Amino acid sequence: MNQTELLHVNFPHLRDLKPFDTAHSATPWLADSDAKHSRKLCASIEEAVKRCGLQDGMTISFHHAFREGDRVINTVVALLARMGFKNLTLASSSLMTCNDALIEHIKSGVITRIYTSGMRGRLADAISHGLMDEPVQIHSHGGRVKLLQDGELNIDVAFLGVPCSDEFGNANGTHGKSCCGSLGYAMVDAHFARKVVLLTEELVPFPNMPASLVQDQVDYIVQVESVGDPAKISVGAARVTSNPRELMIARYAADVIEHSGYFKPGFSMQTGSGAAATACTRFMEEKMERSGVKARFALGGITGSLVDLHEKGLIEKLLDTQCFDGQAAASLARNPNHVEISTNVYANPGSKAASCDQLDVVILSALEIDVDFNVNVITGSDGVMRGASGGHCDVAAAANLTIVVAPLLRSRIPTVVKRVTTRLTPGESIDVLVTDHGIAVNPARPEIRERLLEAGLKVVDISALYERAISLTGVPKPIEFTDKIVGVIRYRDGSVIDTVRQVKEEV
Amino acid sequence: MNQTELLHVNFPHLRDLKPFDTAHSATPWLADSDAKHSRKLCASIEEAVKRCGLQDGMTISFHHAFREGDRVINTVVALLARMGFKNLTLASSSLMTCNDALIEHIKSGVITRIYTSGMRGRLADAISHGLMDEPVQIHSHGGRVKLLQDGELNIDVAFLGVPCSDEFGNANGTHGKSCCGSLGYAMVDAHFARKVVLLTEELVPFPNMPASLVQDQVDYIVQVESVGDPAKISVGAARVTSNPRELMIARYAADVIEHSGYFKPGFSMQTGSGAAATACTRFMEEKMERSGVKARFALGGITGSLVDLHEKGLIEKLLDTQCFDGQAAASLARNPNHVEISTNVYANPGSKAASCDQLDVVILSALEIDVDFNVNVITGSDGVMRGASGGHCDVAAAANLTIVVAPLLRSRIPTVVKRVTTRLTPGESIDVLVTDHGIAVNPARPEIRERLLEAGLKVVDISALYERAISLTGVPKPIEFTDKIVGVIRYRDGSVIDTVRQVKEEV
Repeated sequence: MNQTELLHVNFPHLRDLKPFDTAHSATPWLADSDAKHSRKLCASIEEAVKRCGLQDGMTISFHHAFREGDRVINTVVALLARMGFKNLTLASSSLMTCNDALIEHIKSGVITRIYTSGMRGRLADAISHGLMDEPVQIHSHGGRVKLLQDGELNIDVAFLGVPCSDEFGNANGTHGKSCCGSLGYAMVDAHFARKVVLLTEELVPFPNMPASLVQDQVDYIVQVESVGDPAKISVGAARVTSNPRELMIARYAADVIEHSGYFKPGFSMQTGSGAAATACTRFMEEKMERSGVKARFALGGITGSLVDLHEKGLIEKLLDTQCFDGQAAASLARNPNHVEISTNVYANPGSKAASCDQLDVVILSALEIDVDFNVNVITGSDGVMRGASGGHCDVAAAANLTIVVAPLLRSRIPTVVKRVTTRLTPGESIDVLVTDHGIAVNPARPEIRERLLEAGLKVVDISALYERAISLTGVPKPIEFTDKIVGVIRYRDGSVIDTVRQVKEEV
Repeated sequence: MNQTELLHVNFPHLRDLKPFDTAHSATPWLADSDAKHSRKLCASIEEAVKRCGLQDGMTISFHHAFREGDRVINTVVALLARMGFKNLTLASSSLMTCNDALIEHIKSGVITRIYTSGMRGRLADAISHGLMDEPVQIHSHGGRVKLLQDGELNIDVAFLGVPCSDEFGNANGTHGKSCCGSLGYAMVDAHFARKVVLLTEELVPFPNMPASLVQDQVDYIVQVESVGDPAKISVGAARVTSNPRELMIARYAADVIEHSGYFKPGFSMQTGSGAAATACTRFMEEKMERSGVKARFALGGITGSLVDLHEKGLIEKLLDTQCFDGQAAASLARNPNHVEISTNVYANPGSKAASCDQLDVVILSALEIDVDFNVNVITGSDGVMRGASGGHCDVAAAANLTIVVAPLLRSRIPTVVKRVTTRLTPGESIDVLVTDHGIAVNPARPEIRERLLEAGLKVVDISALYERAISLTGVPKPIEFTDKIVGVIRYRDGSVIDTVRQVKEEV
């Protein structure tokens, strides 16, 4: 009886133990000096797809760190179409105007289900008009991780574009030609996906560490010409504004923060991707300089303005789930206290801890806000989808002070409405609305209303803002919808907070 | 019919979707300004144990980054004993002389199974003499992660000592009073354990980032007086030598590296925890300075000597799974290219990539090495366990050149033997043995033998070293063992490479 057999006899619970065979039985690549280095490298995306065992009906994912500059999503889906795949679920962390090319692959049945934070452009328009049989699932950034954690969303293959990786898959978004900065979305996919494929512009020598995506998460690596154009990260929703009305609203929002009771040494803040929201950062700088109040951290999507404040010592740390511009990406590479975090660490309500729970103040945008403070960030006043859930409902639920900034009217259409076309964030999560016509405070926060009044700010009832809006424009005609559900709005906890119906064709 | 019901009717696969309730249904702590901050904090370890739901028969784990200075393992096990727990599996990444106190808790049935990389002192002695009914499972550092990955080892509660953490569980080993440096072992437990309890000396403000253990991995946090004495990290196996024979062997080993064919610009190296192995680093410095050959990285347990080379620009990156001294811990806090890696990234053969696979040269120690180059690092010449598997078989299997350094005799007992008392690393993984009486090359590597001969090094047959040893000491008396298996030696892939029998009591 050999040693292992003896063990099995004496200790029945150890009966699965196998005797030693050779040093390389479990690691055959170690006996091959080429395979040791090249076992993950694929000559083409097609090879990687085959090695992943992708099948019809499976789920593929992407990150949207390159935003409007992304070149991975369209490329990979077009390849999968050529390879003959059907019935795939597309689970990109978000979709943009640059993804119009997906329309044909939806028409041809390559993509039959979509999970995304949002949509814009012709793709969103087509889906709003009934392109897909199944409704698109719109989730928040935190809620996406919850869906992965709860198993509703199972990523079979994640295709993750990065500027640089080594041959083992250690990758980051801060070094190389096309830097997107934080890989906060990709980190989650690398954790949850069954197979992870990196598309990298550069292959750099091992060890490309510290790494954002780590070698023990990566299955295959393909070198490609381009993964994205970083110049287009700040195009669209993440743009910088010089619009005087947006700047005025931003200044009012900074006044609200100053007098809210939360502007204290060690406070924390987040400014979303909207133009007025990001502009508010600049006005905060002035107030922080003047008062000596410094922030402990800023959270979420990080902009160049936040980097400025960080480098001036006004914000101690930047917790970055997505860089909104090149300046932020460059800072992430350079500043040790500019820290990359995954969306699980950022905002998942099912995470062991979400950083948004620590947040004092957040400034968010809205396409519509109603007299109960419910917010719509997905459908336009024509009922067509043209936005994204983003971290909106995540951070609104968690922050101590949630401020929405919005102009009262946009192109002569009211932003403050009786009832939002689509509800993404419940009114209970919104504390203050700042418009160019006055500031409204949620009746649930009377103490904040008092503080703002004491400071002499122009506080009005939200219903007065609504009345003001319709006095200028008249009551808008109701949008006509069919009965077909084209979008399901998932709250961060996975529940259905609203649905979007198909817009009736104009006659 | 409400929206959600409509959805269920139209899309049966969405029937599990629930309608939205309130913003805080899934996150009740957000409605409570205290709970938002304190929901993980426990007033005592006992409270944390209770909240984890620990039960008899479960598995608890610890890391050994404080080595002989550890104060967590004994404290927690003593508490569990007082709380009346029985039948626990102890899965510490390793155990040391400082863990003698566990003997009583094994005797009383609190601990009935052990998984560890090694053991020393009275505990190892008692186990070698039959203290436990079940054999101890001895694994390598990489092999431990494989056991976790394969599900043989399931950690119910990991108790992880750290010098500092914030209230969400962002922790590192580089800031605070008692810095152990890399938390490479703890990172694995934080990933795999069902519940993770941090024991921290300091509670620092959120966000304590970048973090080694991240908030989304941590369940409970307890502030304690002390988690370990960093001054004792470099006591014992990780000590620095001034022994002239060890220094001579170290110098020979450096000569072997220089002439092995692997000493080229961009090479990589690892020096284990043995005194001669770490001393070799100093001799490498001289050769690197002289030749201008710089290393791309050093891997594994990091020492002050490696830090010196890194800071002199001779080693580009340090990949650190464990700091062997305070200088290494301080460097990890200071040097951006001194990178903390988990033992999964370091050496798990089942990982998507193990860094040891990239290694050119490793220097390892041995308690015994036999004429077939098999190595024993666990049992002394008396058959009693007094060592640790560590990363020995992991790195030996993966590196391009594996060198074992050992004196021919220790206290007049041969190190080179006919057959090792216990086999941990198979001879096929060992390329060169360096002793104070000559250098032996594995016949499987004739090209290396040629190179060393050409360089004029004293190359001899390993059988000649064995003959030389017994000519000096005589053939040692065989050790007498009983039939009882007290230890099972697991190869890195989980297979059983050897067993250890109970030593017969001296009469």
